[in-house]
Amino acid sequence: MKVLVIGGVAAGPKIASKVKRVMPDAEVTLIQKGKYLSYAGCGLPYYIGGVFSDRDHLISTPTGTHRDIPFFKNVKGLTVRTNTEAIKIDRENKKVLVVSDGQEEWLSYDKLALATGAEPFVPPPLKNSYENVTTLQTVEEGDMIFKALESGTVNNVVIVGGGYIGVEMAEALMLRKCKVTIVERESNILSIIDPVLSMLTRNYLEQMGIKILTDTNVTGFIEKPGNSSCACALETGKGKIQGDLILLVVGVRPRSELAKDAGLEIGKLGGIKVEATMQTSDPDIYAAGDCVECLDRITGNSVYVPLGSTANKQGRIAAQNIAGKKALFPGIVCSGVCQIINYTVARTGLTEIQARAAGFDAVSVLVSGPDRPHFMSGMAPIFMKLIADKNTGKMLGVQAVGPGDCDKRVNVAATAISAGMTASDVANLDLCYAPPYSPAMDNLITAANVLCNKLDGTMNSVSPIDVHKRLEDGEDIFLLDVRSPKEFSHMALSGSHLVPLGKIDERMDEIPKDKPVVVYCKLSLRGYEAAIKLKAKGYNNVQVMEGGLLMWPFSRGLSLK
Amino acid sequence: MKVLVIGGVAAGPKIASKVKRVMPDAEVTLIQKGKYLSYAGCGLPYYIGGVFSDRDHLISTPTGTHRDIPFFKNVKGLTVRTNTEAIKIDRENKKVLVVSDGQEEWLSYDKLALATGAEPFVPPPLKNSYENVTTLQTVEEGDMIFKALESGTVNNVVIVGGGYIGVEMAEALMLRKCKVTIVERESNILSIIDPVLSMLTRNYLEQMGIKILTDTNVTGFIEKPGNSSCACALETGKGKIQGDLILLVVGVRPRSELAKDAGLEIGKLGGIKVEATMQTSDPDIYAAGDCVECLDRITGNSVYVPLGSTANKQGRIAAQNIAGKKALFPGIVCSGVCQIINYTVARTGLTEIQARAAGFDAVSVLVSGPDRPHFMSGMAPIFMKLIADKNTGKMLGVQAVGPGDCDKRVNVAATAISAGMTASDVANLDLCYAPPYSPAMDNLITAANVLCNKLDGTMNSVSPIDVHKRLEDGEDIFLLDVRSPKEFSHMALSGSHLVPLGKIDERMDEIPKDKPVVVYCKLSLRGYEAAIKLKAKGYNNVQVMEGGLLMWPFSRGLSLK
Repeated sequence: MKVLVIGGVAAGPKIASKVKRVMPDAEVTLIQKGKYLSYAGCGLPYYIGGVFSDRDHLISTPTGTHRDIPFFKNVKGLTVRTNTEAIKIDRENKKVLVVSDGQEEWLSYDKLALATGAEPFVPPPLKNSYENVTTLQTVEEGDMIFKALESGTVNNVVIVGGGYIGVEMAEALMLRKCKVTIVERESNILSIIDPVLSMLTRNYLEQMGIKILTDTNVTGFIEKPGNSSCACALETGKGKIQGDLILLVVGVRPRSELAKDAGLEIGKLGGIKVEATMQTSDPDIYAAGDCVECLDRITGNSVYVPLGSTANKQGRIAAQNIAGKKALFPGIVCSGVCQIINYTVARTGLTEIQARAAGFDAVSVLVSGPDRPHFMSGMAPIFMKLIADKNTGKMLGVQAVGPGDCDKRVNVAATAISAGMTASDVANLDLCYAPPYSPAMDNLITAANVLCNKLDGTMNSVSPIDVHKRLEDGEDIFLLDVRSPKEFSHMALSGSHLVPLGKIDERMDEIPKDKPVVVYCKLSLRGYEAAIKLKAKGYNNVQVMEGGLLMWPFSRGLSLK
Repeated sequence: MKVLVIGGVAAGPKIASKVKRVMPDAEVTLIQKGKYLSYAGCGLPYYIGGVFSDRDHLISTPTGTHRDIPFFKNVKGLTVRTNTEAIKIDRENKKVLVVSDGQEEWLSYDKLALATGAEPFVPPPLKNSYENVTTLQTVEEGDMIFKALESGTVNNVVIVGGGYIGVEMAEALMLRKCKVTIVERESNILSIIDPVLSMLTRNYLEQMGIKILTDTNVTGFIEKPGNSSCACALETGKGKIQGDLILLVVGVRPRSELAKDAGLEIGKLGGIKVEATMQTSDPDIYAAGDCVECLDRITGNSVYVPLGSTANKQGRIAAQNIAGKKALFPGIVCSGVCQIINYTVARTGLTEIQARAAGFDAVSVLVSGPDRPHFMSGMAPIFMKLIADKNTGKMLGVQAVGPGDCDKRVNVAATAISAGMTASDVANLDLCYAPPYSPAMDNLITAANVLCNKLDGTMNSVSPIDVHKRLEDGEDIFLLDVRSPKEFSHMALSGSHLVPLGKIDERMDEIPKDKPVVVYCKLSLRGYEAAIKLKAKGYNNVQVMEGGLLMWPFSRGLSLK
C-alpha cells in the first residue's frame, strides 16, 4: 500500500510515522514544501526570547538527533522529500502533482493524507512586503527576528494582534529588553477569554511595561524615507505607531486550496471538512491538523482552532483509519493556555459570549482565590470565570488567569466538560490535596460551589463590569465593603462604606434598606456571608460583587481611592 | 431548629457554617473537644519544617483573623464551645451528654452532626508514654515538636510509618537539618502507589540523605537510662534504632465510639456508615469527615481515606441535607498527593494491586517523559503508571511521581476516572497546550496512547521489575539498548547490547531470533519503534521494557554498569 502524506510539520509526520508503525510493509512518502521537518513552531517565541539558546532544539529530538531526511528514513522508515510542493490532486487516478526545484512529478497513492497546515493572515493594507514586517510561523521567520534582535537595531517592536501568539511574543521581546506595543482591533486583547479576565490580564501586561492599544485598526504602513524595503511605522485609525520591527500575528487561515481545487468539501470556516475518522469527502483522502475544521464537543458546531496538540491527536487517528483500524476523533473543547512572564491565561469550553451566541441560557460567576493555603510559600492568586447552562447545570466553560497555577484547574475543567459534568459534579470531584498543591477546597471546586449557589438562587451576585457601568450611569448604589479597617485603609472603592463582617449585626442600621446594596470584600467570601446576614434581616436588594476587589479590573478607573 | 455539631476541625465547622448560611434562623452549636478550632492540621509539617514561621497561620483566616469563639459567633453566627467533649448520645430524646471542665450537661438537638475525626494509630508495643515519642495530629503536638527542634536537642529523628505524613515529615525534618530514618513495616514505603514508582521515590529520598528501613516492625521502645520519661531507641525486628525524637505516623482510625455506643451502624473498616446524603442509620444524625467510611466510585466498595479535602465536601453536603436541600456525595476515587523536597507523589483510582484484588482484569503500563518540551527551562521528568480494565478499556488508576508537574496530570485522571472514561477517551482529551506547560502531547495523553497500544496488542511490553526478576532467576534474555553510543557510554544495564535505533535495519543480524529480546531506550519510545521493526522482520519474542532506563528502579542493583 502506498501512503502519501502532504505536510511535514506536526500532523503530517505523525500520520506518516504512525501508519508505518501499524503497517510496516506500507510505502509511506512524506512531502514538505519547506526545508525544515517536524519543527516545534510553538517554541519560536521561547527561542526568540532567549529561554533557550540552541535554535537546533526546535528541529531535534530530546536526545539531540536532527529530525531530517536520514532520521525519518532510518528511524521511522519513511521516504521524505523537502522543498517539494504539492500543487494538484488527481483524485480519479489517485496521484498528486508535486514540484521540486522547478521539476514537476506525479506521485501516486492508495491513501492520501493532507496536513497542509495554516497560513498566517496578513492584514489587507499590507500591499508591499517590507524587510522589517513579518509574520511568525516558520523557522526562517524565527531566525530573521532573532538575527534582527541580535543586530541591536531593533528596540521598538509593534505587535499587531493581541491573541495567544501576540502576548507570547510580547513576553519574548520584553525579555530581550525591547519596548513593545500591542495593537488590537477589538476592544479587548485575548478575545478567547471574557472581558473581566482579559482586562485583568491587560492591567498586568501594562504593569510589566507593555503598551496596549485596543480598538485600533491597521490601515497601512509608512515606508522609511529613502528605504522602500523598510517600514518605519504602522498607520492606524488612531494615528501613526512607530516600530523598528512590526510583527503580524492576527491569526491564521487553513491552507485548504489544494483540497478545494480537488473538489473536496470545505467547511464554512474555510477548513477542510472531515469525519470523526479524519476522512475527507473522498474516502481515500484524509486530513488533519491546522488545515481542517473541528467538531466542538459542546455545541456540535464546526470550529477552527489550530493547535499542535490537536494536530498530533488527529494525526494518530487519521493514521489508524488509514491502516484499517477504526478510531474516532471526538472533537475539541477549545482548551488553550499562554504564559506572559509570571501570568497564565488558560481557558476551555465556551466563553459567556460564545455560550449566549450558541443559544445557551448561560449563568456565570467570577471567583478569585489563592492557589494554595495562605501560609504556603509560592501561593499566588487565580482569577476564574465559570459558565454553566442554567437549565441543565452542565459546565460550558472555564477560564482562569493570574500568577497562580491556572492551567491545572482548566485541564480538570476541560475533562469535566468533555464528560458532560454539571457544576455540582465538578464541586464533588476528588482532586489531589496537600498544602504545596492546593487549598483543601481546590479553587475549581470552590468556584463550582459558588456557581451552584448562583444556579440554585442561594447567591445573588453581580459582575464588577455591571457595577462599574451602573455607577457610571449614575445609579445610587450603596457599596458595602465588609473587610477589616486595615484592609480598607490600604485600598478601597471611592464612595464605598466600611462595615467589617464581624460588625454587621450590631451596625446594620448604617446600611440602607431602600437602595441597592452591592457587597464585597477582598475575594467576596466574606461579602457572601454578609449578603446572607442582610437577606435574613429583610434586605431584599443585596448583590454580592463577584470575585471581590481582587477582580475589580478598573485599576485606573474612577473608583479607586 | 436546633442543630448540634460535634467536632471542630474540618467537617464540623463546615457543616455548622453552611447550615447557618442556608437556614439563618437555625440555632447552631458546635462543640470541640480540644482548644483549637478549624485548624489546618495538614499545614503542621510545613510549620515544623520552617516553610512559614507564624504558627498562628494554622488557626487564622487568610486575612489574619483567628478562627476562635468570637469569630464563629460574630462572623458565622454559631455558638461554639471548646474543651467540651461529647460522651453519650441519647437518640430517643435527641440529646447529647457533654462534659466540660468536669461538668456534665445535656444538649438537645433536632439534627445532630458527627464530625469526630480520626485517632492516630499507636503501635501496640507502646505501653508507656514517653516525652519524645509522639503522633502528629494536633496543634499541641506540632508545638511540642517545633519546641523540641528549637531547643537544639533533637538531631536524630525516627519516623515510624512511610505513608504520606511520614514522607512529608521526612522533608520537614530534613529542612531542619535533622538526620531522618523512616521505619516501614511493609516492603515498600508509600503503599498507596505500586512498587516501581515507590521504589523510584525511595531512591530519591535516599539520595536526599533519608535513611529508609522497610520490612521493619516496631516491637518496643528502650528507655533512656536514668530517665524513664524518655525513650532512647526503638526496638524493631531488625535491631535497635536510636532517635532523639520518635514520630509515630502509621495511619489513623476513625473515631466512631460515640456513634457506635449510640447504636449507629458502623462499617467494616470501623468508620461510621453513611448514605450519599451523609445521613447515618439514624435519619436525624449526620456524619462527615475522618470519622466516616466513603464509597469508592470505581469499585462501589467502602473505603477509609481520611482527607481534609473530602471532609470539606462532605460537610457541605451534610449541611445541605440537614437544611432540607437534597444533595448527594458521589464518593471518592482516592486521589492523593504529597511533596518531598522537589519530588511529587500523586495518585488516583486503584493501584494495580488494588485493581486485581477488586477482581478487575487489569492492564498497566509504565511511561516516563519530560513534563515540557526538552528545550524549555524547568522541564522535569514524570514517571507514570496507568491502569485500565482489559475488558472495557476503562481507566482504573493513575499514579505519577517525579520532579515534574505530576499532580496536574493526576487531577485530570481523577476527573476522567470519575466520568468512567476509557484509555482512548483520555488519549483524546483536549488539554491546554503551550511549551511552558506541557509537551504538545501531554504526558497523560502519551501514556494513555501507550496503554491503548498495549490494550489492542500493538505493543508487547514488560515492567522493569519483571525483567529484573527474570534476570535474577537466570533467564537468558537479550537486553537490547537502542539509544545512541554516547548515551550508552554514560550508563547502561550490565550485559546489555547496544544497537542504536537508526542502525537496527542494517545490524539486525546481531540480534538473536532464538531467545527473548527485551528492548528499551531512555524512555522506551525508541524501544517501541525498534520492537515494531523487529516484529516486522519475524522476531516473535520481543518485549518493550516499560518506562525505559529512566524508570529502572534498581539503582543500586546488579545490573548497572
